[in-house]
Amino acid sequence: MTETNLWRHEAYAQNVILKFLCKKILFSDQSPYQKVEVVETDYFGRVLLNDDIIMICEKDEFVYHEMIAHVPLFLHPNPENILIIGGGDGGTAREVLKHPSIKLCHMVEIDQMVVDACKLHIPQTAVSFLHPKLDLKIEDGVKFVQNSNEKYDVVLIDSTDPVGPAVPLFGDTFYKNVFNILKDDGIVVAQGESPFYNLPSQKSLMKITKKLFPISCFYHFGNMTYPGGLWSFLLASKQYHPVKDFQKSKIPQMKFQYYNPDIHIGAFATPSFLNKIIQTL
Amino acid sequence: MTETNLWRHEAYAQNVILKFLCKKILFSDQSPYQKVEVVETDYFGRVLLNDDIIMICEKDEFVYHEMIAHVPLFLHPNPENILIIGGGDGGTAREVLKHPSIKLCHMVEIDQMVVDACKLHIPQTAVSFLHPKLDLKIEDGVKFVQNSNEKYDVVLIDSTDPVGPAVPLFGDTFYKNVFNILKDDGIVVAQGESPFYNLPSQKSLMKITKKLFPISCFYHFGNMTYPGGLWSFLLASKQYHPVKDFQKSKIPQMKFQYYNPDIHIGAFATPSFLNKIIQTL
Repeated sequence: MTETNLWRHEAYAQNVILKFLCKKILFSDQSPYQKVEVVETDYFGRVLLNDDIIMICEKDEFVYHEMIAHVPLFLHPNPENILIIGGGDGGTAREVLKHPSIKLCHMVEIDQMVVDACKLHIPQTAVSFLHPKLDLKIEDGVKFVQNSNEKYDVVLIDSTDPVGPAVPLFGDTFYKNVFNILKDDGIVVAQGESPFYNLPSQKSLMKITKKLFPISCFYHFGNMTYPGGLWSFLLASKQYHPVKDFQKSKIPQMKFQYYNPDIHIGAFATPSFLNKIIQTL
Repeated sequence: MTETNLWRHEAYAQNVILKFLCKKILFSDQSPYQKVEVVETDYFGRVLLNDDIIMICEKDEFVYHEMIAHVPLFLHPNPENILIIGGGDGGTAREVLKHPSIKLCHMVEIDQMVVDACKLHIPQTAVSFLHPKLDLKIEDGVKFVQNSNEKYDVVLIDSTDPVGPAVPLFGDTFYKNVFNILKDDGIVVAQGESPFYNLPSQKSLMKITKKLFPISCFYHFGNMTYPGGLWSFLLASKQYHPVKDFQKSKIPQMKFQYYNPDIHIGAFATPSFLNKIIQTL
């Protein structure tokens, strides 16, 4: 392999590119859904790329995974049954399974190759696949939520950007089905894109969930390898308000790297320009 | 000019590069301190680069400038005399001068060329140079704080990264002098770098201010063109605590694009890993 092939280029926008050098390509193959790669880098540690877009890197994956999992799971008073759609690297499941109240965590990932590549090369996140409470199904999350008879406390949509296999995960029908498989006090959290790089997706997601759920809002975090600095999750809830009903004092002293009660509350502070946009939806 | 010359490359770290295409180079010259460029881009609008590092871009400069200015100025009950060190694009002064209590805003920028380039090509930020309350001095901020007999309510250190002319602005002696020119209830805010890309600078800054000021903390924001997603300001204060003494209800209904009372409070939520590091300093 020549040195040129060790550079990876992620297009953040037209003519805006993040370029980084790999020390080694650990895995590179084409699945029925996407190109899957795991590469070793100097700065980010090991990196998972789907179709040349960075999904996670070892150096800061804890931020994304702690925030998608612990915000809804510490908001819900007794989360027992959890569904993860996507999240094939295992990081979201790893954080979910830190909660002792969990009885069963279903995980529905469409792409076996992502799971296999991470099992082989990113044990930091794939460690969760060994957990006895995890039930991993390799199938289409869209069809799963349509046909499921289960009822969940929390659904986590740990999806890629709305391109390729993830497009239906940003749609109206999908969210209606998610609403139906949630219990009466259920919460859904979804990867929510960036206001600076994908505002149309944010608007569309918020419009869909606002119609279905009494409570619907974005919360924020910074991701080192996602474009735009400010990245979001969307939380939609049938009963609990993520700030008003959050009981700070109930959070046990666990050793999280990013999450803590102040971070939970602070993440829901929305920039004024985004507040204005949300109000018009 | 060939097409190749229109690409700009900012090195985020060794072998991690942000690459973007310019439509036009509006200004490019070498000052006694640094290479100064203003370029026109598709995605970021006009961009100011010092030594090939993005200082500001039109698309999201409001985030940085609102956060450096309004957090201390709404914390202080009556900010009248302000000193800005650096900030040659004018954006920080623009936000400071929105506060009607301000009597005089001194601004000390070392590089005349930055001011001139922005006056010519970035009117969005340079608009503040016309304000009657602004007193711009082209001189070394380090010497200015050493020799000044003024006393300020708020000092804002709107500096570049700790390379080149900005190195002394991250030093012990500089902060001792800043402490001395602040009134008994004064506040200083400084560009505080990123925990993912420049933790040593953050640690050093915090160590220095912790020794001098009773209150010293980081607050956070996301910047589209700074590496690492999570970026910070350092706030050090002689009397007012940025959250406990912040009076949310006093904030007038002004039309900020990013800042609001929830953002003010939420920005001080510090990730657990950073809290742990700060506690050891």
